[in-house]
Amino acid sequence: MKTVPVIESVAGFRVRACAAGLKKSGKADLGLILADHPVPAAGTFTRNRVCAAPVRLTKSHLKQTGGHARAILVNAGVANACTGAAGTRDARRTARHLARGIGAKPEEILICSTGVIGHPLPMEPLLKGVDTLTSGSGTEEFARAIMTTDLVPKRAGCRVEGLGVVAGVCKGSGMIAPNMATMLGFLLTDIAVTPDVLQAALVEAVEQSFNAVTVDGDTSTNDTVLAMASGCAGNRRITKTTGTAYTAFRDGLAAVCIDLAKQIARDGEGATKLVEVIVTGAASTKQARMAARTVAESPLVKTALFGNDPNWGRILAALGRSGARMRESKVTVEVAGHRLFAGGTPLAFDPAVVSKAMKAADLRIAISMGDGAGAATFYTCDFSYDYVRINAEYHT
Amino acid sequence: MKTVPVIESVAGFRVRACAAGLKKSGKADLGLILADHPVPAAGTFTRNRVCAAPVRLTKSHLKQTGGHARAILVNAGVANACTGAAGTRDARRTARHLARGIGAKPEEILICSTGVIGHPLPMEPLLKGVDTLTSGSGTEEFARAIMTTDLVPKRAGCRVEGLGVVAGVCKGSGMIAPNMATMLGFLLTDIAVTPDVLQAALVEAVEQSFNAVTVDGDTSTNDTVLAMASGCAGNRRITKTTGTAYTAFRDGLAAVCIDLAKQIARDGEGATKLVEVIVTGAASTKQARMAARTVAESPLVKTALFGNDPNWGRILAALGRSGARMRESKVTVEVAGHRLFAGGTPLAFDPAVVSKAMKAADLRIAISMGDGAGAATFYTCDFSYDYVRINAEYHT
Repeated sequence: MKTVPVIESVAGFRVRACAAGLKKSGKADLGLILADHPVPAAGTFTRNRVCAAPVRLTKSHLKQTGGHARAILVNAGVANACTGAAGTRDARRTARHLARGIGAKPEEILICSTGVIGHPLPMEPLLKGVDTLTSGSGTEEFARAIMTTDLVPKRAGCRVEGLGVVAGVCKGSGMIAPNMATMLGFLLTDIAVTPDVLQAALVEAVEQSFNAVTVDGDTSTNDTVLAMASGCAGNRRITKTTGTAYTAFRDGLAAVCIDLAKQIARDGEGATKLVEVIVTGAASTKQARMAARTVAESPLVKTALFGNDPNWGRILAALGRSGARMRESKVTVEVAGHRLFAGGTPLAFDPAVVSKAMKAADLRIAISMGDGAGAATFYTCDFSYDYVRINAEYHT
Repeated sequence: MKTVPVIESVAGFRVRACAAGLKKSGKADLGLILADHPVPAAGTFTRNRVCAAPVRLTKSHLKQTGGHARAILVNAGVANACTGAAGTRDARRTARHLARGIGAKPEEILICSTGVIGHPLPMEPLLKGVDTLTSGSGTEEFARAIMTTDLVPKRAGCRVEGLGVVAGVCKGSGMIAPNMATMLGFLLTDIAVTPDVLQAALVEAVEQSFNAVTVDGDTSTNDTVLAMASGCAGNRRITKTTGTAYTAFRDGLAAVCIDLAKQIARDGEGATKLVEVIVTGAASTKQARMAARTVAESPLVKTALFGNDPNWGRILAALGRSGARMRESKVTVEVAGHRLFAGGTPLAFDPAVVSKAMKAADLRIAISMGDGAGAATFYTCDFSYDYVRINAEYHT
């Protein structure tokens, strides 16, 4: 039996974590991914105009090095967002400190922060934590160190036949948990690729996964997905974004990202189930995404899912306002395997039977627009009392 | 003391209602507004691509008559949406029946329906109800007859100095209540205007009011606002969209619409408070609307409002993803009269004091973007346990 690859086992990287004292709970809150030498690195970032200091720094570092890095440092507890000029100084200082500790250039350091926004980074414990990690101490609990309101650590991995392995971890529960920011994802591979290929594959993979998961429609100031490729697998280096090797690599990366994205939706704040909204037959991929996203984010659809209510009317109304081209008479709507609407009118169905089917922990809403070849899938969860409780009871 | 004008007192119109048996409760469910002769009429309609049969019919009638009508007929209980060709036939038949009853042309009849979607109109009781109303029977409870999940009827009115009166009623609670559709609004005036002027003023008034209220971001298949102008006030007819008379008329109409829109937000499903999101200093009016709407619809902001949590971070994150141009360092955020964020960093404040201020039934979030002269206000409510309960417990 083959084991699933984990980030700790990807050749060419060391992964460490420690409790630097940034989480009040005293749990692990600082994680380090260290490559033996500068390797190709890629990133995708929040599109929120309010963008945290570490995001700005990491973007600029990737640009300066042409897509290479030695290390990724992640802290949880404090997001270093909305912290003005002091936030920028602190992020830079952290990168310099780590660079010195491992004998790298500051621009070879990528930094992510997640946690409370508007608070300054506690620099003294943070830098001490960095020293702990660079001295070889610490544990392997990286996946736990990056958690904020997550209930469970999130890990995934796969083997890409004939090439090597891809493994990843992520965190994220609400898009912004109670004033705690961020979806963060980290992908490691031993497959040899150029920085451009890594970036292109990451963008494609993220579009189908982390950019297709929505808990509440809110995107954070810190959202970041980073990938590093050690090249230790010894494959012939992938240098272009066409051909079977590229396709296999990209699909492997996408599979890991989709697995992680589903784990985020399943762990959504107050979620009782994972819901896949699958749209086919749209006029274009873009329109399919608009339709899937609008259904996946509709509070009325999400509360109906919580109540196991086969309310096709809300799904149809969400489609209608999504901006996607549609003709009512061409649309079919299927919930949990039961076709509820087709040909412009509702079909006869037994609500009790469909409602029972909707109690599954994994649920599919399948929509065909009957208008083209555009397809997209979004991952979401239902909207429960607990979502309101978690987000209303938190106090700054 | 002057009394507030009500729709029943606007000269040139008769307003009637009855219980036709479309609501299971046996309450009033059919309303009629009747003009003595064809008068200027105007309408704005849902932008949802799934558009109910009565909406399509009323649009086409207004077009055929060049903006004139004799009557508005409204039924609650059944929305006649997603009903295919049969729905279109039923709506046409209803209009013809009423037209015969009052000696009008079918295209002079405007029809609105609200209620369950996907069910056919029960034509026999409906047409009997129409006969009751045209025979002069029925009561004056029009505002109650159009209610679905609304807890209270919604009425407003004002006098326009030197011109006449404007009065209105509306219904709406969730944008789509539990599978019950629709925001409907009806405005009557005795002021003499041309159809073009009435349409222009209505579009301007609706943009600031019904198009600036959001309970959950979902728009329905039936949303309609109609206006009729009897001309009985005897003013010199307003024939152009400039000048003081037009401005006064439009502002009066807008004031009535804003009053009604606020009543919808206050009566939002599960709402404990009315929240005004006021954005100023945006690059344009359009950008101000984008910013205000995104804040007003953010589930994270709305749950924080329910929890009386002065969570400026969620407001800032919503602004950042709204698409409106912004520089963090220029933005100020004020909640319930307390300034929480300015100059790119949070300000010192006592959370307990702000939280107490947030317990008010009417709350303002004032945001300055510091980037231009664009301004907009959105009306919303908080997001409570009851919102989830109302929308999860309903079963089709």
